[in-house]
Amino acid sequence: MTSTTGTKYGVTGIGNAIVDIIGRCDDVYLAQVGAAKGSMRLVDADDVNKIYAGMGPAVEISGGSAANTIAGVASFGGRAGFIGSIADDEFGRIFSHDIRSIGVTFTNAPIKGGMPTSRSLILVTPDGERTMNTFLGTSTQFDETMLDRALIRDSAILYLEGYLFDREEAKRAFKEAAKEAKAAGRRVALTLSDGFCVDRHRAEFLSFIRDGVDIVFANESEIKSLYETSNYDDAVASARKDIKLAVLTRSAKGSHILTDGRDIEIAAAPIDKVVDTTGAGDLYAAGFLFGVAHDLPLETSGKLASLAAAEVISHIGARPAVPLDRLAREKGLLT
Amino acid sequence: MTSTTGTKYGVTGIGNAIVDIIGRCDDVYLAQVGAAKGSMRLVDADDVNKIYAGMGPAVEISGGSAANTIAGVASFGGRAGFIGSIADDEFGRIFSHDIRSIGVTFTNAPIKGGMPTSRSLILVTPDGERTMNTFLGTSTQFDETMLDRALIRDSAILYLEGYLFDREEAKRAFKEAAKEAKAAGRRVALTLSDGFCVDRHRAEFLSFIRDGVDIVFANESEIKSLYETSNYDDAVASARKDIKLAVLTRSAKGSHILTDGRDIEIAAAPIDKVVDTTGAGDLYAAGFLFGVAHDLPLETSGKLASLAAAEVISHIGARPAVPLDRLAREKGLLT
Repeated sequence: MTSTTGTKYGVTGIGNAIVDIIGRCDDVYLAQVGAAKGSMRLVDADDVNKIYAGMGPAVEISGGSAANTIAGVASFGGRAGFIGSIADDEFGRIFSHDIRSIGVTFTNAPIKGGMPTSRSLILVTPDGERTMNTFLGTSTQFDETMLDRALIRDSAILYLEGYLFDREEAKRAFKEAAKEAKAAGRRVALTLSDGFCVDRHRAEFLSFIRDGVDIVFANESEIKSLYETSNYDDAVASARKDIKLAVLTRSAKGSHILTDGRDIEIAAAPIDKVVDTTGAGDLYAAGFLFGVAHDLPLETSGKLASLAAAEVISHIGARPAVPLDRLAREKGLLT
Repeated sequence: MTSTTGTKYGVTGIGNAIVDIIGRCDDVYLAQVGAAKGSMRLVDADDVNKIYAGMGPAVEISGGSAANTIAGVASFGGRAGFIGSIADDEFGRIFSHDIRSIGVTFTNAPIKGGMPTSRSLILVTPDGERTMNTFLGTSTQFDETMLDRALIRDSAILYLEGYLFDREEAKRAFKEAAKEAKAAGRRVALTLSDGFCVDRHRAEFLSFIRDGVDIVFANESEIKSLYETSNYDDAVASARKDIKLAVLTRSAKGSHILTDGRDIEIAAAPIDKVVDTTGAGDLYAAGFLFGVAHDLPLETSGKLASLAAAEVISHIGARPAVPLDRLAREKGLLT
């Protein structure tokens, strides 16, 4: 499916190129390694080795928040691109193989002789909740020289991963990318990524959003953190003023789309059993961005988003296990 | 659970230390890369790269036939060891982390500066059947100097993977290991691994078995290949003469245990949906060896075997996703 804006690509994402190392652990181990359940934290090489040594058997599978979203867009049949930094090692080869094998354009060459490819130890507790310990490795070398500007100009939507606010060079690259997209008449979308990440960079997130982000994705804790309030309705009132199109996800409560004074409530898609919530927000964004890039109504985009999120939490791993376009057709959401 | 023979370990396995790269493909791709469905073949570095480039997104997970069996024994609560060759790279770290994290003793140090850690591209077709393309890498450097002889002497059963017959040095290591086990009064078990592998080394398999293997695992095509017959009953008649305890697996038809003129038929454990048959034979062997190492009746050992095989084919990956001792207790097979 080609985008209706006349661009070759529907969505191009920029984010950390990460391989996930997913294993189960109990709440005791989580406390022992000092991780806050449900959050993402950055760890150094020593810590990542220590946490890995103590966790159970794992599965390695391509991840990265924006990369998962882009994989979801491709699974819906959208043309998509990805920009991120990998090293010349096995994890780099896994990441680029997996994203290219689903038809995503990914032009970044592996960086030789530097740090290893990023990895995230994802500890899944018995409640299906996931806690991430990310070693950035070569992603810390990402800067504006790695932007594929032609790809950005030729994509209806540029999608940015909030995690990149954790590094100065990456943040500068973000701003450059957004400028490039805007100059070409494209839309810019941003996910706040994580409540703790918002805490660390609140003022910059706010000024970046007010400077021209068109679509913002956030969950409850992220939007509350952005507006420093413990009251969801207060956060919503503030979001209405700042954000053209805000998409607020609320786990089992579904999601909430705010635009032009309109409120759209989308129910969570039903699911038998939550196996692993890794990727829920990423895949929600995938369905929504696919819909918006193809000029589908916001209600339909929200339903595609919920469908994709429900699929990804029904199994281990943060990317779709079945083609999302087929699922969407079965549900009558795509023709 | 400690073994009833007075040894510290119930089972120690020797095999290729492999990381599986599991992805789906259709029958057309299988034909295109010239692979015979359901078989294992060895490929070189060029071929492994070519096949990988054309296959879909994948999941990386520790594998290796004997290593899967040993992981199964540990999951039943047995004390177990593994011997195999890894390189000083990411796949080597994944392999050793995963096997050690479930309590298996694995003492082989990574080999520096040689070939990379073994990997197997496992192509899963829509029928759930798996076809393996194995790049041996550092496993080709495995020889008798890498045997942990103390571990072998202290294990009730030494379990050997037939795939190692594909290399001279590994085969020599096998024979040394079997001699060590026998001298200490232990039992030796062997899996024929693959019909094509038996074809390549029939005479040596037969002489090795007749020289003192106590337990042989084979599926229908392997046992028919061993005795060069297309008739299963003829193969069974020959196996009766050569093999003290033969365990013949027949997929959905269940399994067939031959010993001392007795025949025991074990039904396949029921399963809702076959997702990926990778590891079915390996986990069957795990249940059976766990039972035998702990002096359980052969019928019970066969049922544990079927239970473990059914668990592993219900999901992607060749190692148990849930603790097998818990499953066995739920079914009343262990107390």
